[in-house]
Amino acid sequence: MSPVTSAVQLSEEKLARAALTYLAEPGDPALGALLGICGPGEVLAAIKADMLPGIGPGCGDSPASRAALERALGRWRVRLAGLPGDADIAAVCRDGIRLICPGDPEWPDGLDQLGLARPYALWLRGNADLRFACLRSVSMVGSRAATGYGAHVAGEIAADLGERGWAVMSGGAYGIDAAAHRGALAAEGITVVVLACGVDYPYPSGHAGLFSAIAAQGLVISEWPPGCHPARMRFLVRNRVIAALGCGTVIVEAGERSGALNTARYAADLGKPLMAVPGPVTSAQSAGCHRIIREWGATCVTRAADVIEMLSPLSVPDELAPGGSLEPVFTPGSGRAGSRAGSGSAPSRDDLDADTARVLDAMPARGGAGTSTIAVGAGVDLDTVLRCLGRLAGYGFIERCDRGWRLRRP
Amino acid sequence: MSPVTSAVQLSEEKLARAALTYLAEPGDPALGALLGICGPGEVLAAIKADMLPGIGPGCGDSPASRAALERALGRWRVRLAGLPGDADIAAVCRDGIRLICPGDPEWPDGLDQLGLARPYALWLRGNADLRFACLRSVSMVGSRAATGYGAHVAGEIAADLGERGWAVMSGGAYGIDAAAHRGALAAEGITVVVLACGVDYPYPSGHAGLFSAIAAQGLVISEWPPGCHPARMRFLVRNRVIAALGCGTVIVEAGERSGALNTARYAADLGKPLMAVPGPVTSAQSAGCHRIIREWGATCVTRAADVIEMLSPLSVPDELAPGGSLEPVFTPGSGRAGSRAGSGSAPSRDDLDADTARVLDAMPARGGAGTSTIAVGAGVDLDTVLRCLGRLAGYGFIERCDRGWRLRRP
Repeated sequence: MSPVTSAVQLSEEKLARAALTYLAEPGDPALGALLGICGPGEVLAAIKADMLPGIGPGCGDSPASRAALERALGRWRVRLAGLPGDADIAAVCRDGIRLICPGDPEWPDGLDQLGLARPYALWLRGNADLRFACLRSVSMVGSRAATGYGAHVAGEIAADLGERGWAVMSGGAYGIDAAAHRGALAAEGITVVVLACGVDYPYPSGHAGLFSAIAAQGLVISEWPPGCHPARMRFLVRNRVIAALGCGTVIVEAGERSGALNTARYAADLGKPLMAVPGPVTSAQSAGCHRIIREWGATCVTRAADVIEMLSPLSVPDELAPGGSLEPVFTPGSGRAGSRAGSGSAPSRDDLDADTARVLDAMPARGGAGTSTIAVGAGVDLDTVLRCLGRLAGYGFIERCDRGWRLRRP
Repeated sequence: MSPVTSAVQLSEEKLARAALTYLAEPGDPALGALLGICGPGEVLAAIKADMLPGIGPGCGDSPASRAALERALGRWRVRLAGLPGDADIAAVCRDGIRLICPGDPEWPDGLDQLGLARPYALWLRGNADLRFACLRSVSMVGSRAATGYGAHVAGEIAADLGERGWAVMSGGAYGIDAAAHRGALAAEGITVVVLACGVDYPYPSGHAGLFSAIAAQGLVISEWPPGCHPARMRFLVRNRVIAALGCGTVIVEAGERSGALNTARYAADLGKPLMAVPGPVTSAQSAGCHRIIREWGATCVTRAADVIEMLSPLSVPDELAPGGSLEPVFTPGSGRAGSRAGSGSAPSRDDLDADTARVLDAMPARGGAGTSTIAVGAGVDLDTVLRCLGRLAGYGFIERCDRGWRLRRP
């Protein structure tokens, strides 16, 4: 049993959210609306009972929207027969895969910007901390049919970003995506691949080795549950998560009808800095980049330094900005704490609250330790140690490892 | 004796302005200031007499600025010994070279935006009408050390602009400038080269043939008098004229320290649309283009259609815009008339005033005719025929030719 995920997976709310990822396609606004007013357990029970929960004003209070919710209920009930039991879901989570939900310490703020289209939950494979990775992150996507030029430039910029402590998010496709992941890996940076299928389903199959390498050094994540196959529409739905996770999005090569422009559109709609790498005007694979520079106001970037300059003053969350509060700020209802962190501006140990400082002191100097070992060493209970570990990971002090948690290399 | 220029060259004011181009370097703010308050003949006389003219308020009324003007007088007097006599200047003007001055029908509005740095006069070689060429024009400049990619793209865009009736202005240098001129020539478009030396001085000498071809199909122009040699500083001063003549400026390739960025800066300072063609981020010759897209807000353009789209709604003078006045509008003091013209929106003959319509009717259907022949045919005096011919050229009805004037091919 993995010491990291066992206790978390016992929560009834998380089990319900996990079940919802099996029943509904991500981004379903009906489910997003229901989850805005009911708990996930209540929604799951309603689907099983084929009866809408008693809902207050603001959702389903007009006959039309009530009818839409009932149609959605029918849609989700179709998949009830294939829904694994709680024990099976828990077993998946012990298999090197974990689930994070809104309100978890590892849940990135960026996803909350998606409103009704916010993921119900995310399945993760890998030891990196998603929230920490997102604090200094660049989404980099582009054409599958990349040219040698595009793949070269994507790899160079991603490697440079990785070396400077920025995580690279992408979609794991052939071409630019793969070059971006590989560049980050080569620089020993964190890279996150957002799949449109289960985190255990290597698609494209030729990237099985790449995804394993990413899981070992970064994260393989998905809104779809393990075992789920990819489908054409899922890639488009998935793209909003890529755009939402990064502090900004860079398009390296994109033909006029490239799916990368769909991700670019999401980034622009989310108000995130949108950047594009130019190329020869004689290359069709750069035409989309030039168009969004000209027509959408995407910033023309040519190297990692341009990207960082674009993101640093604007988009690094307040908690990372100079002069940002050092006091942990709890977001009501989420139990999440935010503070100044990141490679350049991590808070010192003196800035941590007493419990968190005690947990940090209990971390072994070398190698990793399990959650309960750390709890015993720090003299705090299991709930407290879990909260403090999540916070320390989010601040960049520690990271997950095969044995549980370890101090992060500076 | 050329029938086109003979009468014009007799004016005392033009002879004085011609003489000033021999005495002062272009862009001298002291001379610009003096010409703002005194006539050119008065200024020339003052230089010859080594005594500042009696000037009113606004110029030289403080001891400091009076001292600056006196120093300038000394500067200009140094060259008095080499000043050709009026007859010699007139002889130059008969040798296929003509002079245009502020207020002439052919003087382009764009030059007046230069304020104190407005050219004192311009020397022209070629039959095209400068004012008409400027109405739909693009300044295209770039690196001398152009890559094959840059030269190809500059040539393609310039040819496409030429085919669509847009004139291409450039500096006649090796690399991008030459490719732009050649592209326009190949498309039988109008192209204008702005030299930093006399219009009869081929610099670089390898471009003597190119300049002859430009003179035959467009214009070779300069602020410096015939015979004048180029000098390093003159190229930078010349660049402001390239930027001022075009409706907008396109940079095709420019290294980080390219002189093309100096022209780009002038265009931006003049409030003209500034555009740049992107290229591979791995090419140093595109680094300047990418930087001005990112930092100066230059528009990323990839083809002629992008350039025209950028210029058409914004920068074509009012007289060309739909709904612009068809009535000739005389600018007080300049004797210049403006009206709707241009290949797409030329006024019909019915829109012309009686004298101008009569002169147009007197044009031979084929071949060219001299000024006095046309005057006799139209039954108007020589002053009137000159005014009407300038106006018709500015409207695009007629153009200069070796025999005088001819109807312009539609």
